[in-house]
Amino acid sequence: MADMVKLSLDEIRTLSTEVFIANGMSDANAEVIADVVTQAEADGTHSHGLFRIPGYVSSMKNGRIDGKAVPEVNDKAPGLVDIDSKNGFSPPAIVAGRSMAIEKAKSQGIAAMGLRNNGNLNALWWDVEPFGDAGLICFSMSTSRSLVAPWGGDTALFGTDPMAFACPRDGNPPMVFDFATSAAARGEIMVAAREGHSIPEGWALDKDGNATTDPAAALEGVQLPFGAHKGNAIMMMVELLAAGLTGGNFCFEAQEQFTEYGSSDSGPSNGGQVFILIDPKGYHDNFARRVEGLFGLIDAQEGTRIPGDRRYANRARSATEGVECQAALHQQILNMKAS
Amino acid sequence: MADMVKLSLDEIRTLSTEVFIANGMSDANAEVIADVVTQAEADGTHSHGLFRIPGYVSSMKNGRIDGKAVPEVNDKAPGLVDIDSKNGFSPPAIVAGRSMAIEKAKSQGIAAMGLRNNGNLNALWWDVEPFGDAGLICFSMSTSRSLVAPWGGDTALFGTDPMAFACPRDGNPPMVFDFATSAAARGEIMVAAREGHSIPEGWALDKDGNATTDPAAALEGVQLPFGAHKGNAIMMMVELLAAGLTGGNFCFEAQEQFTEYGSSDSGPSNGGQVFILIDPKGYHDNFARRVEGLFGLIDAQEGTRIPGDRRYANRARSATEGVECQAALHQQILNMKAS
Repeated sequence: MADMVKLSLDEIRTLSTEVFIANGMSDANAEVIADVVTQAEADGTHSHGLFRIPGYVSSMKNGRIDGKAVPEVNDKAPGLVDIDSKNGFSPPAIVAGRSMAIEKAKSQGIAAMGLRNNGNLNALWWDVEPFGDAGLICFSMSTSRSLVAPWGGDTALFGTDPMAFACPRDGNPPMVFDFATSAAARGEIMVAAREGHSIPEGWALDKDGNATTDPAAALEGVQLPFGAHKGNAIMMMVELLAAGLTGGNFCFEAQEQFTEYGSSDSGPSNGGQVFILIDPKGYHDNFARRVEGLFGLIDAQEGTRIPGDRRYANRARSATEGVECQAALHQQILNMKAS
Repeated sequence: MADMVKLSLDEIRTLSTEVFIANGMSDANAEVIADVVTQAEADGTHSHGLFRIPGYVSSMKNGRIDGKAVPEVNDKAPGLVDIDSKNGFSPPAIVAGRSMAIEKAKSQGIAAMGLRNNGNLNALWWDVEPFGDAGLICFSMSTSRSLVAPWGGDTALFGTDPMAFACPRDGNPPMVFDFATSAAARGEIMVAAREGHSIPEGWALDKDGNATTDPAAALEGVQLPFGAHKGNAIMMMVELLAAGLTGGNFCFEAQEQFTEYGSSDSGPSNGGQVFILIDPKGYHDNFARRVEGLFGLIDAQEGTRIPGDRRYANRARSATEGVECQAALHQQILNMKAS
């Protein structure tokens, strides 16, 4: 076990903000990205927490992402918001358009918010939860870069193309799910390779297009969609909505740009993301009551769970207890305060 | 091989219309349901073709579905259409609201159409394709009745809960996919039981909650979601949008009403369905060009296909060649002309 240090959420927020600003991020953007890092640590989704700070910093230093980007919000139609993220991080762009999108969804009943020119791929639960808090149903999809072959094929074309969904609840935080529409996240295969264990069938093909359970061979080959041909259809939908509709890059286009940098920094280049927002009160007033009835029946079955509940339990605990961070990572980040 | 008769599409349309009217359907509804039957036969999706006519007729005769229902279309908000199907068949209700929904999507950029009190569950590709023809992206989900356990559980709660998606194309009919979000359609398990072969692991649990590959045991037990916990999350989304949002029945509620009839007629009682419609021209003008680029790269990989292309190939062939129907089924339907 690596040496660990205990950090409070306030310490994480302050440290993240300082490091981002010291490395060229604008104050406004640093505040938002520090919130992503802090919330991710609070919720136990460490892959979007402190672990990611070095990559964010190197992406700014090598010019792939503009840390000072000022997103441009365009009112495209009574139900459509368009955001040009200006090759910056996506969370500040989401925050920039959020109030207009919420207002449109509440006045029109439904609205869409499209982002293009995203420089990174954020944790989608962070992206959708505030819309659920605002009483809206939110469905979001995002492109990444091509790592996944279409079902039946053997050449990378789709990304891990995540989708997320938030459903507002009365008296509870929103039900939120968030997953890659590939069979596995890239990181899961990298962990298997590092730890020397095999991966399940159905996750990947090797570079010759043969099914493999060897993570090293998988990383040289292509990943596969979740759920066979059905998941493949959903991946097409993600590409068409998150990129085709918004004007963001398809994953294969992002890959072409990404490869130019020859870096392993996460995220797409000029990526796209879409949010579909619906006000359930636009149809009737008993949505919240009926939803609780359904959730109650799911919860009543042993072995099931409501998506997001594990994160919320982590959040409640970490608010008082803080979180643990590898000492070496912590030191690496501290060293970045003087860039 | 059963004795087969060859029928033209015109013959199928005329026969269906006559049988429906002879058995108590209104002329207007008969025209729409006959189109579903005819298009399903044309496209080779026989499970929604002539095969289904006896069930439609018995559902009207036993009072479960009102063949003379006049759907009520309500303008709920600038972006929302609400339709009360009045316990009739869903296709006439969809047709009733379609022009208002298209107009809203084109003027607002995005719109939703919700149906409640559906008496049956239609082939969703038929439902979504006209919106694609109108230049809109269309995403639809529908409830059915509870046959599927939530992931980790063992008690039926969700339905086969289909989803469908249409993407408009320039110079081609829309790309359309349509599938059950359960691992298998009910009919696939019934066919396996009749033909005496096993079903794949992951489709179902037996009545004691154990995994089974025996189709008979599966039919007494519960089906499972496609794609493990990810498909399970999508099934929750279908229930929340198609029923929770619209005011239609959740699948477990439909099941309670369905059981009262003790019949094997297909479909939910007071079911719900949602359509989300987006005008891609609301964002930019090069959607069609970019989409063709993506589809071209999918098509270029051996072993892949664009969803819906098999149906369109069938459609082109059946327009000139007609389709084959089991002689016994044809005679059964002919006998229904004099009810």
